[in-house]
Amino acid sequence: MDLPVQAILREVGPRDGFQSVKNFVPTDQKLAVINSIRDAGITEIEATSFVSPKAVPQLRDAAELMEQVMRDGVAYTALAPNLRGAQHAVAAGVNRLAVVISASEAHNQANIRRAIDESLADLDAIFDIADPNGVDVIGSVAVSFGCPYQGDVPLPDVFKIVQAYLERGAKSIIIADTTGMATPNRVDALVRDFQHQFGEVQLILHFHNNRGTAMANLLAALNAGATSFDTALGGIGGCPYVPKAAGNLATEDVVYMLEEMGVHTGVDLEKLIRAAHRLQRFLGYSLPGQVMKSGPRDPERAAQLCDFCTH
Amino acid sequence: MDLPVQAILREVGPRDGFQSVKNFVPTDQKLAVINSIRDAGITEIEATSFVSPKAVPQLRDAAELMEQVMRDGVAYTALAPNLRGAQHAVAAGVNRLAVVISASEAHNQANIRRAIDESLADLDAIFDIADPNGVDVIGSVAVSFGCPYQGDVPLPDVFKIVQAYLERGAKSIIIADTTGMATPNRVDALVRDFQHQFGEVQLILHFHNNRGTAMANLLAALNAGATSFDTALGGIGGCPYVPKAAGNLATEDVVYMLEEMGVHTGVDLEKLIRAAHRLQRFLGYSLPGQVMKSGPRDPERAAQLCDFCTH
Repeated sequence: MDLPVQAILREVGPRDGFQSVKNFVPTDQKLAVINSIRDAGITEIEATSFVSPKAVPQLRDAAELMEQVMRDGVAYTALAPNLRGAQHAVAAGVNRLAVVISASEAHNQANIRRAIDESLADLDAIFDIADPNGVDVIGSVAVSFGCPYQGDVPLPDVFKIVQAYLERGAKSIIIADTTGMATPNRVDALVRDFQHQFGEVQLILHFHNNRGTAMANLLAALNAGATSFDTALGGIGGCPYVPKAAGNLATEDVVYMLEEMGVHTGVDLEKLIRAAHRLQRFLGYSLPGQVMKSGPRDPERAAQLCDFCTH
Repeated sequence: MDLPVQAILREVGPRDGFQSVKNFVPTDQKLAVINSIRDAGITEIEATSFVSPKAVPQLRDAAELMEQVMRDGVAYTALAPNLRGAQHAVAAGVNRLAVVISASEAHNQANIRRAIDESLADLDAIFDIADPNGVDVIGSVAVSFGCPYQGDVPLPDVFKIVQAYLERGAKSIIIADTTGMATPNRVDALVRDFQHQFGEVQLILHFHNNRGTAMANLLAALNAGATSFDTALGGIGGCPYVPKAAGNLATEDVVYMLEEMGVHTGVDLEKLIRAAHRLQRFLGYSLPGQVMKSGPRDPERAAQLCDFCTH
């Protein structure tokens, strides 16, 4: 295996997770979770989404939350599905703004009710707000590995949107497997083609686990040279427009696997496991993360962290 | 990636899964599940374990079940934890007998209440029964990637048991990650060392998902040259002596990923998904398999198979 010496994890649970929870999670609980993630050493956190409170009432506290979380040393990102969301996000003082366009027309319509060309046309206005305010834009391409309406999505359709982001000045690109249709061979091909076409641009992979392949996809991406990944504490999340979506890769599971393979993340696994337990208490149901249940490999550490980890 | 053109899946759900279920699954339901797995094209099924009915009452119907399942074209294996179990299994007419020894003393004591040397001493008597009856022996090495009591397990301790099996005439070796402590780098190293030391002996990898790494481990094993894997319908199972064990790799998730990568399994994914749904109805709770929830990638096939798969 050909693994990098370090990797960067971008925590998306507070956005991708809390938007999928049935009930509104109180702002102080969201803040406690975000702070515990930061204290574990995660340096990039997607904290919320500036989306219509009618469409996603779970995140109606986006502006208040952003005001509270801003701290030195951690880059807080917010997602914005459209120009109006971007205006609110920049006004709220985000460091980075994540924008999303789907690589298939059908999913772009379902997700943000726009044709792809309409979304692309909005980009100029979004950059016009972000740039003078010193806000970096991260361009995310949804359903990059397959669309639940269309099936396969050709790579040129994905890269056309990447190109549009980069031409306008995006600093990083998220390639998202929104509905868990990626497989390791598809990931390997995309990562290598991306690097060939776009060189040193930061590529962030965002995998969902709907078909059980997310961790294998991450391994394939690492092996092909990718080093940045979206993960979510406890594995919460999943696209709200994909029923029975299975959630994200759990941040603590990824930290565990990477560190065990000698890939440095700079994250404290034990603090992260405690943060996942706290999140689970807030939400009141069992989360999909596995390391938060089984603990690290060392029997003594596992026993200290999880009363049910070992004998 | 360097992937093989085909792989063999050995179904262990009827043994590893049904032994972990709280209530006794009626024999006719077990048979229905086994038959639906066979009808999907799986050619090796570990159907039960000849274990003390006091220790594992869920499998007290082992002899009756074996009598019912014997059919042409499918190799039915039963597990036996000791000589007495092997006697019963051979008398019941199994094609293959799986025997287990742990690579750590502490786990061998917990699992079968014997020192490793005692288990090794029993092997001669087991082969003495199996050989004249034409029963192949598969030697399984538990906790090969780590022990929940001891932590790391040195490779020589694993290979010492492999060697003992092979010297007595075992045809295949199972390397089991009994408590989900394997990581892709450990898998890569073990598979390559195994091939170096034991050449063409059939190596079967058995991964549990306690720490979320099982599918990544399978990918690493494939990439290192392994082609045989234990999987369990719906992802049921897990060692009964490891609390909160997270189950096996779901057979249908593995078939899905392998076939999508061009690795031929000879298994009909749609039949397997239907079999997993049937198993879930029998057990009455949600199983960890993902493809049984999300369906295959093709939107139309997914919609036909799972009413909640797509929009």
